[in-house]
Amino acid sequence: MTDTTDMTECAPRPRGQVLGEGYEAAEILTSARLCVDPELRAAVESLPGSLRRIALYHFGWEHADGTPAAGNVGKAIRPALVLAAVRALGGDPLSAVRAAAAVELTHNFTLLHDDVMDRDATRRHRPTAWTVFGDSDAILAGDALQALAQRLLAEDPHPGAPAAAARLAACVVELCAGQQADRALESRGPDEVSLTECLAAAEAKTGALLGCACAIGAVYAGAGADEVEALDGFGRQAGLAFQLIDDVIGIWGDPTRTGKPARADLAARRKSLPVVAALASGTPEGAALAGLYGRGSDQGDLDRMARAVEGAGGRDWAQLHAADRMSRALGELARAVPDPERAGGLLALAEFVTRRSH
Amino acid sequence: MTDTTDMTECAPRPRGQVLGEGYEAAEILTSARLCVDPELRAAVESLPGSLRRIALYHFGWEHADGTPAAGNVGKAIRPALVLAAVRALGGDPLSAVRAAAAVELTHNFTLLHDDVMDRDATRRHRPTAWTVFGDSDAILAGDALQALAQRLLAEDPHPGAPAAAARLAACVVELCAGQQADRALESRGPDEVSLTECLAAAEAKTGALLGCACAIGAVYAGAGADEVEALDGFGRQAGLAFQLIDDVIGIWGDPTRTGKPARADLAARRKSLPVVAALASGTPEGAALAGLYGRGSDQGDLDRMARAVEGAGGRDWAQLHAADRMSRALGELARAVPDPERAGGLLALAEFVTRRSH
Repeated sequence: MTDTTDMTECAPRPRGQVLGEGYEAAEILTSARLCVDPELRAAVESLPGSLRRIALYHFGWEHADGTPAAGNVGKAIRPALVLAAVRALGGDPLSAVRAAAAVELTHNFTLLHDDVMDRDATRRHRPTAWTVFGDSDAILAGDALQALAQRLLAEDPHPGAPAAAARLAACVVELCAGQQADRALESRGPDEVSLTECLAAAEAKTGALLGCACAIGAVYAGAGADEVEALDGFGRQAGLAFQLIDDVIGIWGDPTRTGKPARADLAARRKSLPVVAALASGTPEGAALAGLYGRGSDQGDLDRMARAVEGAGGRDWAQLHAADRMSRALGELARAVPDPERAGGLLALAEFVTRRSH
Repeated sequence: MTDTTDMTECAPRPRGQVLGEGYEAAEILTSARLCVDPELRAAVESLPGSLRRIALYHFGWEHADGTPAAGNVGKAIRPALVLAAVRALGGDPLSAVRAAAAVELTHNFTLLHDDVMDRDATRRHRPTAWTVFGDSDAILAGDALQALAQRLLAEDPHPGAPAAAARLAACVVELCAGQQADRALESRGPDEVSLTECLAAAEAKTGALLGCACAIGAVYAGAGADEVEALDGFGRQAGLAFQLIDDVIGIWGDPTRTGKPARADLAARRKSLPVVAALASGTPEGAALAGLYGRGSDQGDLDRMARAVEGAGGRDWAQLHAADRMSRALGELARAVPDPERAGGLLALAEFVTRRSH
């Protein structure tokens, strides 16, 4: 990965001049995956055997019995944001492949731990690591991935590496606080949570790492403090838009595409953003939802809940609020990267995550 | 902490010329605590409120209800080793206070997580964090402490900081593998574990971080690769000696001094090193111990177990083997620091941890 003249694999060039059409998000994601996977896999392969096995399973590179698997490692949105941010600010994406891998390792450390805490049994269409290896091994594999992420940055001679490492570590603290706030909200009654608290938790839990990914890209491009902060803001706002859409999908998504059971978030009584908006709506449907949330349910009840969220305006609110966050994200992006053509890659990624239907 | 002319607080000067008497370990530990605590506390205070509370409780700076406590943060052996290693290799200990705090944060991250996994209910004479705040909050606080440790190093302008960060991250991976191996050994039958496996797990779980502390000190002193590795070896071997003595204390220690119930390791059927040595001894007492380990027990049985470990030679073996590891530690130390006077601080610390009786 030292040849900086041929970047076709790592960052496709725009094929058109029209904003939003110049880059294909799917192509950017695939390119990022091609670039970052070798670094990511090498880091995971460097783990001692027993920890390596858990991590290889988690990333989808091995089955539970240790035989090779095709890999099903998610959409790589965060590493793609790192590389796209470098490119948008005039840097060399290839210089930031290690940093992009560090961000993805950090994301996966939090997934391993969150699944243990939340007792989530399925991720990416497969049983979660703790269900296969037990809580302790999943915790230890997560701990090791956080360490690997920091090791990659500590060993990176790029002048931006220490600042990126400090940002990533600060982001982990925010992610932990977000997960903690999210769990605290989930433990309260349906009438005891406010939309403001839920949005703050979502920003810390989801927005922070997307913002950090973009900011690290800016750091690697040698951008100034203002541009770095604007890109952090861009990622944060896009991350909140992403979470809002994700919460809509958690209620109305197609199980064959999401890999989760239908109405999963309702069955788990999650206080997702559309639900909390509905509960706070002051509408009869909101009151009905609060009643349904307080007791056991069958599939008919779950469908009734979904209709109540929709009737109370929770679905529309989430989609409008996602659009609002997206608009703020674009404002931040324009502040850091005024040239729309250069901003195209980041724009395509932000639109991809908020337009997806599964 | 920018005054480098007055180091009396951070690193007491030798009061005599005789090896081992020139430094008082207790004084070195107290000095290290005085130096490192402000940095450590500032890092913990930087956490968001809900995570901060857990960390302040864990470090003994707050009671469970959030009221201030005197602090009972352990012996600070690891930060003392960092500072003593810097001094032994001719560096300025004050330059490594942040690194010493990072090592102590890392140690405490592993304590928080290990206590969750091992269901240990007491640490430093107090209920463990997970018993007070729940598993998830203890896991999240541990995650945040690992991140804080790396953040301290990433923000440290010292030229040794990136190498120290990389070593610390690699060490965390080894600590995780050690904890995993330790748990795997504990889940096996008494006749299914070998002393070699147990020693390897103890080296990874305990020796690695003591070695890393010393190596980081050497890095901060600007030492060459050979000296850094020798100091890592010194810490590792002293760490194994420490673990062997700790395991002896886990059976024969005085509960009023250890803060743990009498015979705690036997009651928990831990495969500590004296126990495994006894089980592997081929003696009638070893066979009797295997029988006792396989079933429920009252206090009389625990006393019988302790006598069986002793009768099978497990206690003597552990003490002799600790002495052997200590001798290897001193060999490594002499390789890096041939001048016994300069090595005095590290020597005093190593002797302290292996001579303690509680």
